[in-house]
Amino acid sequence: MPEFKPSPVEKGTPLSRPAHLLHDVPLPAAVVFEAPLTHNLAWMQRFADEHGAKLAPHGKTTMAPALFKRQIASGAWGITLATAVQTVAAHAHGIDRVLMVNQLVGRPNMALVADAIEAGLAYCCVVDGADNVRDLGAFFAERGLILNVLIELGVDGGRCGCRTAEQVETLVAAIAEQPALALVGIEGYEGMIAGGDEAASVCAYGKRLVDTVRTLQASGVLQCEAPIVTASGSKWFDLIAEAFDQAALREHYTPVLRPGCYVVHDHKLYAGAMANVKARHPGLEGELQPALEVFAHVQSLPEPGLAIIALGKRDIGHEPDLPLPLRRYPWGTEGEPWFDVSGWRTTHIMDQHVFLALPEDADIAVGDVIAFGTSHPCLTFDKWRRVLCVDASLEVTEVMATHF
Amino acid sequence: MPEFKPSPVEKGTPLSRPAHLLHDVPLPAAVVFEAPLTHNLAWMQRFADEHGAKLAPHGKTTMAPALFKRQIASGAWGITLATAVQTVAAHAHGIDRVLMVNQLVGRPNMALVADAIEAGLAYCCVVDGADNVRDLGAFFAERGLILNVLIELGVDGGRCGCRTAEQVETLVAAIAEQPALALVGIEGYEGMIAGGDEAASVCAYGKRLVDTVRTLQASGVLQCEAPIVTASGSKWFDLIAEAFDQAALREHYTPVLRPGCYVVHDHKLYAGAMANVKARHPGLEGELQPALEVFAHVQSLPEPGLAIIALGKRDIGHEPDLPLPLRRYPWGTEGEPWFDVSGWRTTHIMDQHVFLALPEDADIAVGDVIAFGTSHPCLTFDKWRRVLCVDASLEVTEVMATHF
Repeated sequence: MPEFKPSPVEKGTPLSRPAHLLHDVPLPAAVVFEAPLTHNLAWMQRFADEHGAKLAPHGKTTMAPALFKRQIASGAWGITLATAVQTVAAHAHGIDRVLMVNQLVGRPNMALVADAIEAGLAYCCVVDGADNVRDLGAFFAERGLILNVLIELGVDGGRCGCRTAEQVETLVAAIAEQPALALVGIEGYEGMIAGGDEAASVCAYGKRLVDTVRTLQASGVLQCEAPIVTASGSKWFDLIAEAFDQAALREHYTPVLRPGCYVVHDHKLYAGAMANVKARHPGLEGELQPALEVFAHVQSLPEPGLAIIALGKRDIGHEPDLPLPLRRYPWGTEGEPWFDVSGWRTTHIMDQHVFLALPEDADIAVGDVIAFGTSHPCLTFDKWRRVLCVDASLEVTEVMATHF
Repeated sequence: MPEFKPSPVEKGTPLSRPAHLLHDVPLPAAVVFEAPLTHNLAWMQRFADEHGAKLAPHGKTTMAPALFKRQIASGAWGITLATAVQTVAAHAHGIDRVLMVNQLVGRPNMALVADAIEAGLAYCCVVDGADNVRDLGAFFAERGLILNVLIELGVDGGRCGCRTAEQVETLVAAIAEQPALALVGIEGYEGMIAGGDEAASVCAYGKRLVDTVRTLQASGVLQCEAPIVTASGSKWFDLIAEAFDQAALREHYTPVLRPGCYVVHDHKLYAGAMANVKARHPGLEGELQPALEVFAHVQSLPEPGLAIIALGKRDIGHEPDLPLPLRRYPWGTEGEPWFDVSGWRTTHIMDQHVFLALPEDADIAVGDVIAFGTSHPCLTFDKWRRVLCVDASLEVTEVMATHF
């Protein structure tokens, strides 16, 4: 066994600093372009501000505290997360307000959250059932802490959440029996609405959230000054914002929007969703821009019209669409010239390989670099422990750790 | 911003040691059961030994050096890997022989490998094109190192690799022009064969590999004493082993098998492949056993017949089959009693949620723990930075880091 033990390189990490993406980084690498990132941060914050809503971006998209900090610096009110471990990771990296939009289940998970609350984290999670309320009440009473909870409203055939007003009433009563729990608002996720006139259903759901929080406020069961009402993924954020805005909640409530994907946007799924937002609001200024790409080498040209790329399911999301080839950088160049290859097509992806169909006379060589876009960013970020910020000339500006 | 900065917990990591999976670990968690793991390590090594082949398990399945070391300790000759960064990670954790079954492309990747070779790593990669041969030859000459290469044989309509004997000849000539390259054998991957009588095609492909390495040996172009001939994923390892064994290669060559999934096996895809191996070889003693499971909490019971599990695409593979519910552990118990829930069915998976269909009168509560099996282990391991070894009583025996 050799004595020498280099630090293991994490894939996509530059070998030197300063670093150029095409010369100093073992590819594949996931990159976020600075300019569209900066644009998106400002665009969505302004959108929330203009609708009188707070922004708590869903952090599960990136799980990159460096991006959380940019979101907070841009004006975000807090970070939304999905699990206790995500919450602890964010808090350990300086995030001091977390909206956890899932039930908190299991004593070790409760213990993690309790420790973070004791250490100063402003936190609330959601509840949708009396058993969980009882378990949380007992655990946090034992710890001598108050846990803030939101009641989750769900939709029939959807995911979690109370389906009916009666279920909400029952849950309110169950929470009232637990001195360690403070009911502070209502939470929902319109992304589960499917079929029929979806836009109309989303608007109706937004109205139901608003009506419910108002009913609860009127009945005096909400234990905070400006109760929270929150919803919105990255597809219908405009309609939820309008539902909250039309209700003129801004003075007496805390309306919170939670899109996550907007921060890097994408090249297809959310690009389409953005087009729909623009169609619904022709006057809306500007739009989100795709910022996330994965760069990889052409590894083999085994048959005419087929390139095998050194990239796979371990490196890039492939749902709902296979990776989208964007640009080709010839081997050994500095980033210029590059060539548009958006007409090429990914036909198959394996753990470590992508199959790219291209014209038989295509100009391509082993060692060339292809930049790929994605359709939905969430399942690309989680393939990487390090994501690189780069500027327009492909110089690395920041190495961002992820904490999945 | 609070002063307190706890170390971020990585999901699935025990909060204490000693640790019991159901009491001390924030779920979800990925676990490997010790008994089937130990069994599989011995079973596959014996299989290779009995066929006169070396075993170089594909490490990309787990990327867990703790498992690599158990594989080496069980008799494996080396570890197979897919990329330069994987190679460096394995070498940094004590693995001193790596078969990289992809072309080595890109100067930063070449630099990583060159550093590892200088530090004592026994390494070879594959080549299938003259351009890559020229680039590698130039790079390693510049570094004053010899790079061992295997010629990859591919199949029509498959992935990488030379399709014809003429391409092999051309490549041999190209390698001969590069003093920094040493041709040491032939590599293939039968897993790309699809359609028709697959078993017969795999046997024919095994024979083609053997014939090719013998032809090259006879022509004097192989620069090592016992040239390598290698193939085999986890589905057809028996047929490849027979192709190598019948050829009586063991004295003058180094036949190498490279299954990866065998180490933890699975509950469906490879369980089926194992049944086929047994059907082809009724006298074969014993069989691989599933060792990998993911444990997660029931998070919500929003409608009769539907449970939402705190588990998602971020935590468990969902291809080719959705996660397979195996057992239910009631909330708060020690692991006994448990209940068989293999009749329940995963109907949908999202980033952080699994939808489980179950009888409307099913005995289940929020907080219960469900153990899930997987179909194909590779895309479960890469969701975790820590995987837990557990014994039959669910006590954690080892926390294994992964290096994806």
